[in-house]
Amino acid sequence: MRIKLTVAYDGTNYHGWQIQNNALSVEAVLTEAIHTLFHVDTKITGASRTDAGVHALGNVCCFDIDTRMEPSRIAFALNQKLPEDIRVQSSEAVSEAFNPRYDAIEKTYEYRIANRRIELPTQRLYSYFYHHSLDIDSMRLAAQHLIGEHDFTSFASIHAQSDTYVRTLTALEIEKESLQTIVIRVRGNSFLYNMVRIIAGTLIKVGCGAISPEEVKTILNAKDRSLAGPTAPACGLTLCSIRYK
Amino acid sequence: MRIKLTVAYDGTNYHGWQIQNNALSVEAVLTEAIHTLFHVDTKITGASRTDAGVHALGNVCCFDIDTRMEPSRIAFALNQKLPEDIRVQSSEAVSEAFNPRYDAIEKTYEYRIANRRIELPTQRLYSYFYHHSLDIDSMRLAAQHLIGEHDFTSFASIHAQSDTYVRTLTALEIEKESLQTIVIRVRGNSFLYNMVRIIAGTLIKVGCGAISPEEVKTILNAKDRSLAGPTAPACGLTLCSIRYK
Repeated sequence: MRIKLTVAYDGTNYHGWQIQNNALSVEAVLTEAIHTLFHVDTKITGASRTDAGVHALGNVCCFDIDTRMEPSRIAFALNQKLPEDIRVQSSEAVSEAFNPRYDAIEKTYEYRIANRRIELPTQRLYSYFYHHSLDIDSMRLAAQHLIGEHDFTSFASIHAQSDTYVRTLTALEIEKESLQTIVIRVRGNSFLYNMVRIIAGTLIKVGCGAISPEEVKTILNAKDRSLAGPTAPACGLTLCSIRYK
Repeated sequence: MRIKLTVAYDGTNYHGWQIQNNALSVEAVLTEAIHTLFHVDTKITGASRTDAGVHALGNVCCFDIDTRMEPSRIAFALNQKLPEDIRVQSSEAVSEAFNPRYDAIEKTYEYRIANRRIELPTQRLYSYFYHHSLDIDSMRLAAQHLIGEHDFTSFASIHAQSDTYVRTLTALEIEKESLQTIVIRVRGNSFLYNMVRIIAGTLIKVGCGAISPEEVKTILNAKDRSLAGPTAPACGLTLCSIRYK
């Protein structure tokens, strides 16, 4: 039976999603919890390999298991075996053909900026503290150039490996929340390596006046990573949800 | 010169505000930072002795110092000496008669409840996870009985020491935020020991149907701590701000 898990985690103490040598990953801890619960070795397939320090409300993965446990109860049973910074939000049986990565039709990310003069300790783990005042109207104008289908080479890590750099952003909204928090919400079919953090880093440059909103169109068309803004820090990024057919 | 500090902290790693033996407190760490910066021993006077685990966006304290440093710069200088879970938000020179505790005319607290089926790791440090569904309308009805001037004996710790248990709540609002978070916002002139957490614990009992909104009036009138709900956990509580004349 193939089980789909929706997983939330605080990425602060993890070196990202993916299993690796000599560093703690969410995938490794989850694999170990499945092993402890079912006494079998399984391989998890994840939808999104979030970077070190990135958080998730709803990353998705699946694994195959032979069990009589009610699929919806697996979330609760796994949570008993997991540390408090990882919590499976739901579990369900899916078709053997389900692939969390390739079947995803839309992902939503949020990037939080604590745009204040002095940092608030209770925000420090889940937002990027940036003290220069940001102009949201400029950021929104710049965002308009990125919405839609484009070649996002300028907004991908030089370490990105992909057959095509064409991606579709279905939404890119910038909102103000309480306590001077600015939230950049991005939706798209799929994302290149570091793409959301480079978009955030570039919009921050626009917000503080270092790049004009119109220049973002030039940067996009140039297909040159060196022209865009820096990769914004991981702690500000949260993978909110992944939508499937 | 008397300096007023507005201080934010993540209370997770502290045994509350007040200096004590064998336990780390916010006041002790702040006193040490002042010592490191100015090379003098000073005594801080705080407005609110928050409990172990309680957070603050704007607790207030003062200390006396002989310095030529511009008062507004002291916040930035102290932050260089403080751990990242304590940040002075502002510093200003005040009258020698200023007393942060007795001059306060209004305090605002927020109590956050993560009212979900399964906890979200990124909320766990700053809210109380409560999985039974809460009825906000009932909680709001109950809150109406507590607003105004009352004897709050039923809503004070039995360890509270006070000449009078009469206090005035100027506001008690219950709001729904994103991610199934319920926020109880309380304003008043001053608060008894554990009062906000007992109000929160009682409103949670109302929300899940264990206490009716009308019973809260009876509980208030009885002046008996044993009738009210439990003291809700510290991690959900944040001291937001303190207002002065």
